[in-house]
Amino acid sequence: DHHLPQGYNLRPLEKEDYVKGYLHTLQTLTSVGDISQFQFNEVVDYWKSQPKTYKNLVITNSESEVVAVGSLIVETKMIHGCSKVGHIEDIAVRPDQQGKKLGLYLVRELVKLAKEEDCYKVILDCDPRNEVFYEKCGMHRAGLEMEIRF
Amino acid sequence: DHHLPQGYNLRPLEKEDYVKGYLHTLQTLTSVGDISQFQFNEVVDYWKSQPKTYKNLVITNSESEVVAVGSLIVETKMIHGCSKVGHIEDIAVRPDQQGKKLGLYLVRELVKLAKEEDCYKVILDCDPRNEVFYEKCGMHRAGLEMEIRF
Ligand SMILES: CC(=O)N[C@@H]1[C@@H](O)[C@H](O)[C@@H](COP(=O)(O)O)O[C@@H]1O
Ligand SMILES: CC(=O)N[C@@H]1[C@@H](O)[C@H](O)[C@@H](COP(=O)(O)O)O[C@@H]1O
Repeated sequence: DHHLPQGYNLRPLEKEDYVKGYLHTLQTLTSVGDISQFQFNEVVDYWKSQPKTYKNLVITNSESEVVAVGSLIVETKMIHGCSKVGHIEDIAVRPDQQGKKLGLYLVRELVKLAKEEDCYKVILDCDPRNEVFYEKCGMHRAGLEMEIRF
Repeated sequence: DHHLPQGYNLRPLEKEDYVKGYLHTLQTLTSVGDISQFQFNEVVDYWKSQPKTYKNLVITNSESEVVAVGSLIVETKMIHGCSKVGHIEDIAVRPDQQGKKLGLYLVRELVKLAKEEDCYKVILDCDPRNEVFYEKCGMHRAGLEMEIRF
């Protein structure tokens, strides 16, 4: 099976990750904006106040820098006999760390978490150019993402 | 602007909707399974214990039957300056009620709720055959939905 490189670790997000490059790594995905340690703590506190819903993982390298991040949102449903759906969100790998299969490892761990939480499926939305990556993670195309922005 | 037919009402989901046909209408979308009033109440209680996250609406007809249902899940994000994303989920309209634009009305109300909650966008996943309906709701195609089922 697949392993992390020597010195790399997977663990839940902590407030200390603010100074370990969490936001810098997240910027690989999209616009993050200026976020103070105070604002960061508020979001982390909010996530940790709902541990059944929000599960946030990071991968650190041997310098304890956050080099990959990803989240699972567990949604309680009425359908499928009061089941749950896992939403994988905000997957980002620092560009200089790509090629080490960190993203693959992280997504598989989030899928495992969703299975442990009794989700009947895990879904995510992505750009068509990332379809092949998510297929390597064991997923396949299921439908269209529609959006409206404010 | 668009209105509901006479005698129809939009309101939050209540436990009494178990006996008003909520599950029957939801079955239009997908497999629901046998759900007792007790199990239904447990899910509704869970949703109501997280009112910032789960917002569930129903449309009733003049006989007080639930003829359309839909949900908004508000996800707190770190990206975009600690913003939020609204996920529209589990939209269903009872087949004999189609053509009354109940789905359009419901989706627009869920989008309004997301805007009031300061979401920077609202997204949903759908079958390609529903793309035209969601375009009528003001949405457009943004990406692919990928899934894995257990
Ligand atoms: C699997 C994955 O990581 N998907 C992400 C999603 O989680 C994130 O919220 C969005 C942000 O994009 P935006 O800044 O254009 O809204 O991008 C991608 O769809
Ligand atoms: C906009 C909308 O209503 N989308 C629904 C989604 O909310 C629901 O959870 C899923 C269930 O399908 P499944 O039973 O095949 O998982 O169908 C559609 O994607």
